[in-house]
Amino acid sequence: MKRNRYVRLDKRASRAHGAAMITARFFSDNAAPVHPAVMEAIAAADHVDTAYDGDALSQALGTAFSDLFETRCSVLWLPTGTAANSIALAAFAAPWQAVLCHEEAHIEVDECGAPAMFTGGAKLILLPGPGAKIDAATIDARMAAIRKDVHQVQPAAVSITNASEYGLAWRPDEVGAVGEAARRHGLKLHMDGARFANAVAHVGCAPADVTWRAGVDALSFGCIKNGGMNAEALLFFGDVPQGMHQLRKRSGHLQSKGRYLAAQLHAMLAGELWLANARAANAAAALIAASAGERLLHPVEANEIFLRLSPAEAAALRAKGFDFYDWGDGAARLVTSWHHGADDVRPLADAIAAL
Amino acid sequence: MKRNRYVRLDKRASRAHGAAMITARFFSDNAAPVHPAVMEAIAAADHVDTAYDGDALSQALGTAFSDLFETRCSVLWLPTGTAANSIALAAFAAPWQAVLCHEEAHIEVDECGAPAMFTGGAKLILLPGPGAKIDAATIDARMAAIRKDVHQVQPAAVSITNASEYGLAWRPDEVGAVGEAARRHGLKLHMDGARFANAVAHVGCAPADVTWRAGVDALSFGCIKNGGMNAEALLFFGDVPQGMHQLRKRSGHLQSKGRYLAAQLHAMLAGELWLANARAANAAAALIAASAGERLLHPVEANEIFLRLSPAEAAALRAKGFDFYDWGDGAARLVTSWHHGADDVRPLADAIAAL
Amino acid sequence: MKRNRYVRLDKRASRAHGAAMITARFFSDNAAPVHPAVMEAIAAADHVDTAYDGDALSQALGTAFSDLFETRCSVLWLPTGTAANSIALAAFAAPWQAVLCHEEAHIEVDECGAPAMFTGGAKLILLPGPGAKIDAATIDARMAAIRKDVHQVQPAAVSITNASEYGLAWRPDEVGAVGEAARRHGLKLHMDGARFANAVAHVGCAPADVTWRAGVDALSFGCIKNGGMNAEALLFFGDVPQGMHQLRKRSGHLQSKGRYLAAQLHAMLAGELWLANARAANAAAALIAASAGERLLHPVEANEIFLRLSPAEAAALRAKGFDFYDWGDGAARLVTSWHHGADDVRPLADAIAAL
Amino acid sequence: MKRNRYVRLDKRASRAHGAAMITARFFSDNAAPVHPAVMEAIAAADHVDTAYDGDALSQALGTAFSDLFETRCSVLWLPTGTAANSIALAAFAAPWQAVLCHEEAHIEVDECGAPAMFTGGAKLILLPGPGAKIDAATIDARMAAIRKDVHQVQPAAVSITNASEYGLAWRPDEVGAVGEAARRHGLKLHMDGARFANAVAHVGCAPADVTWRAGVDALSFGCIKNGGMNAEALLFFGDVPQGMHQLRKRSGHLQSKGRYLAAQLHAMLAGELWLANARAANAAAALIAASAGERLLHPVEANEIFLRLSPAEAAALRAKGFDFYDWGDGAARLVTSWHHGADDVRPLADAIAAL
Repeated sequence: MKRNRYVRLDKRASRAHGAAMITARFFSDNAAPVHPAVMEAIAAADHVDTAYDGDALSQALGTAFSDLFETRCSVLWLPTGTAANSIALAAFAAPWQAVLCHEEAHIEVDECGAPAMFTGGAKLILLPGPGAKIDAATIDARMAAIRKDVHQVQPAAVSITNASEYGLAWRPDEVGAVGEAARRHGLKLHMDGARFANAVAHVGCAPADVTWRAGVDALSFGCIKNGGMNAEALLFFGDVPQGMHQLRKRSGHLQSKGRYLAAQLHAMLAGELWLANARAANAAAALIAASAGERLLHPVEANEIFLRLSPAEAAALRAKGFDFYDWGDGAARLVTSWHHGADDVRPLADAIAAL
Repeated sequence: MKRNRYVRLDKRASRAHGAAMITARFFSDNAAPVHPAVMEAIAAADHVDTAYDGDALSQALGTAFSDLFETRCSVLWLPTGTAANSIALAAFAAPWQAVLCHEEAHIEVDECGAPAMFTGGAKLILLPGPGAKIDAATIDARMAAIRKDVHQVQPAAVSITNASEYGLAWRPDEVGAVGEAARRHGLKLHMDGARFANAVAHVGCAPADVTWRAGVDALSFGCIKNGGMNAEALLFFGDVPQGMHQLRKRSGHLQSKGRYLAAQLHAMLAGELWLANARAANAAAALIAASAGERLLHPVEANEIFLRLSPAEAAALRAKGFDFYDWGDGAARLVTSWHHGADDVRPLADAIAAL
Repeated sequence: MKRNRYVRLDKRASRAHGAAMITARFFSDNAAPVHPAVMEAIAAADHVDTAYDGDALSQALGTAFSDLFETRCSVLWLPTGTAANSIALAAFAAPWQAVLCHEEAHIEVDECGAPAMFTGGAKLILLPGPGAKIDAATIDARMAAIRKDVHQVQPAAVSITNASEYGLAWRPDEVGAVGEAARRHGLKLHMDGARFANAVAHVGCAPADVTWRAGVDALSFGCIKNGGMNAEALLFFGDVPQGMHQLRKRSGHLQSKGRYLAAQLHAMLAGELWLANARAANAAAALIAASAGERLLHPVEANEIFLRLSPAEAAALRAKGFDFYDWGDGAARLVTSWHHGADDVRPLADAIAAL
Repeated sequence: MKRNRYVRLDKRASRAHGAAMITARFFSDNAAPVHPAVMEAIAAADHVDTAYDGDALSQALGTAFSDLFETRCSVLWLPTGTAANSIALAAFAAPWQAVLCHEEAHIEVDECGAPAMFTGGAKLILLPGPGAKIDAATIDARMAAIRKDVHQVQPAAVSITNASEYGLAWRPDEVGAVGEAARRHGLKLHMDGARFANAVAHVGCAPADVTWRAGVDALSFGCIKNGGMNAEALLFFGDVPQGMHQLRKRSGHLQSKGRYLAAQLHAMLAGELWLANARAANAAAALIAASAGERLLHPVEANEIFLRLSPAEAAALRAKGFDFYDWGDGAARLVTSWHHGADDVRPLADAIAAL
């Protein structure tokens, strides 16, 4: 199988730089190397072509994603999820408007205020919800509490994260309910899909079912955590909204050799590599989760595992060489990635089981 | 010689995609492929490491550039010159301040207002000057014309481009004179060095001589037009100014797999590849220039050639397959790059001579 | 007594336009007319003088407020509390930073995002607290939860409102505890004093005790709700921070005939009119509160009364001609002002008692 | 005549503060006092009413200006021309767009970058033109020079000043030609009318002829320099564009006691006070101009006089107590206002004639 070959190749390369790292580092899927198919695609793009996004690869992105999503998409490549999220939000919210999102959403807690910079100061209005998901009732309640006057910032959009910040995958009907609430209040719906592949792989739905068919207007389609190097795709279901090509340029994100980003995205779509990589990461996470039992703080539906872990236990795991983030008091987050095979994660699973 | 081998390898690759392109496309150095040494460096960086800029390669950038510039530098990798320029200007100018630059500076005419977005609305005050250079007298005169009150926007910085937008290389004493003028008026000095390598290769000075020794506070050190893929270096001579790490993040430019950008920059510095590439591009430009005689609108001191060219002549060249930009009425811009050898540019030179 | 005379005069004027309004309208202290002494001061300022804030009245503001606050103050007149608050916050927080405030603070819920516009996108981080007050423990806990990295927005300031949005007056020791917490975390402290006069009148402290002596760095000193026309004072305890004169101009707030705003502020300070007006409003509120008994949702320490009031009861009061805001379900807000005497509010007090 | 009485009253008041000021101060029309009718209107508005712009006076502004302009207008009161201009430009230009204006336009040289703050960073593209006017040919040429791509900032609006910064009044056909050019290029047209009254009084046309009938979409209708205190009117010919009510609030310009601003505007329109005041100022300027002969740098068509004046001559005038601005080397600007009668300006006229 193609994916396996790549994984094997990559592991060989990684071993040259220290094989132990594969089995030890679980602090982020960003730590993983680039998938070999992505590397090959970059190399294959390495020839003379037009600058910016006029090249053949960039021009073909719309068609490629339209095929995958079974509807006409407009696509901007971008180097980070932060840039993709921010341009999506700027497309929907004016400076004097707001975006509803979960209080632990990446756009709120991990982007140093990027949405405010790109929108010109729009507010994020924070909603609670278990597992970092929000629902229609919460949206309705919040909208009802906002006076429709010029003194209060009026929401223009909702943003949800799939998989959520706690690794939960959204089902089509869940998104649909939020999408209906958004339409009810005249709001656009953005999905931060930094781990969209992991969520779709878990749910097993068509990408369309959990996005535009459920009311999503724009999707940050993540690739970097899933084996890409430095390309994410921002999808608009329909046209690129007015001004957003300019905002990409104006924010310094229109790369002159954009073909190397487009190539990565095509590589991810080719042969469903994006799903294959996500399935590998999910499987690795599931194997660790199986060892964690009662320690699990959230169901594991993607490639993130949130564990109850005392400081002493965390120290014990780290003493064995495992690397991960603390997640508040007495908890930890571990993340697997496309290049983790069963053999790579078993030592960690065993160590957790042995605590 | 190492550089030659890379050039040879690259040409082979390019030929697979249409050899004619090398000899035909002169509209931008961004059209060129990535230098093989850069590609190799990217591949060599492809292993597990810490995310963002905590990795070994990113951490080593300060030292690498400090060696090259003979002083302590702080370095941020960024994917575009627009981002590098904009963060540099934001470091120096508050929203209510201004930056003096040439009226044809890239930051004014080719960045879709990025400096205004990053600075929060600082003004670019445009100065005239032959060859897209500005001088101390022009700065003095402009500063004298600005009332020192709260109604007028007060300049905080000067930005110059080296090589200039018309392909002129700055000599150390020229920069020094501007640097003194800047200091005289309490202004910081930024150099947009998208083609810094070409300028330094032409002048033959030490990088330090034409930058900090001449009063430059920050340099956008260009790599992409010079054989890089998607990494530029923003250098501050001293510390990264307060808030600029945050602004990089907030503008969506802190890439999670930054090691692949750092790798490119190290590759450019290793064995002085940056200078070798620039010399190749300059030589190719010189060969074309030699055929252009009276048509030259500016001395050719880097890798850009500006020609007097009637619409009919431009059409004639294009009919032969050559690709380039018109530059206003009756003029054209042609750009060579690191991968142009003498054989690659001779057809163009001959075609110009034959007009 | 001087105040009484003015009140009498004003009532006469008001009666010409419908005497019933005085006794009926409790929706906002902004509904009140301008105090006659303020009107006289405006008329007295009506002569030829220098434009902007170079006139004698504007120039004397620093001294006048320095006397009142027993320390050197720098003062900017501004036409709204929103402008005053926003410039204060912009003085302290960079675009990539944050301000801690109560989740119901005026800057969060009633200024249409003005702080984001003036700061260039700084975030408001919302804290809970009874009576719309925040305390040191809440600040400490929130600061502890913020990772000190580039991904998370770092707070730079705290903003509190005195009297609070629920009409509670801050005691010097309460402010002092917040001030110490702010200093502990390297944060500046801003006080939104739209109803500062009412709070100080209630507590009976020196203005200095509840501001700079307790750690406050900037104060929005409200006058408009307290009998002014369109002038508020933004006080910095020390110098006007760099750039804030420019921000006032740049936001369209440097009025060309600023002497008419300065005159209002001087009138408020003269003979302690600001305290006299506040005492009148507070007394009127106390009289209403005394009739409300168990209905009171918060202690009445300024000129706002928050009542438990069913929709039917609210309708009954409105049927009698009283005007006020609903405040969520089953609650109402009533506000008195400087021009309410005991006779003016008794009908309302009686009507509440009779419910 | 009503105006005379007010002038007389005002002079009496002014004399109390130093009669010499009337005849001596020509540095700005902002130095003038408020017209007594405006003061009376403010006093008459001094009663209980709804806050912000829900009051009767604010609500009546649309009708009042619609009558004057013979078409439906939407009106926002604002305290400064800078705020009015900036909101108008923000209504028309996105952050990544531009506004064409004269290189000496007030929005460029005298507002500390306010248009950039309100638009979120839109660029002002500066055009030359005698007397601080721009024409259709200049607009056409500039538009032709802008590449229609994402790298260059695309204009969205044109802004002209009437009277111009050199005191020239626009004729309807002149505005019409610019209006046609704007429409040809898809641009909106804004008129900064800080001295609109003076220009209309000079030309003698209907206000409609020189605004919407000639293609103007928004007008900053100045009152403060013409006898107002702190109210300007921003007129949109049609509806207030989406978001602009919010931007007024968000920029701190929605005053809670807006009725005092609305009252000023009504007073200016009542009995054509705005024209009467402008005629008085124009007449005073004409009298001075008549004494200046060859010294005049521009025709005097409003209330500004630009003179050739050597430093020695300027010093001589100042020695006699006259106050005015230098306007570059060897030139001076003198401004008259509504309260200058013939007797008030004759000493200056004589002094100039005697140079």
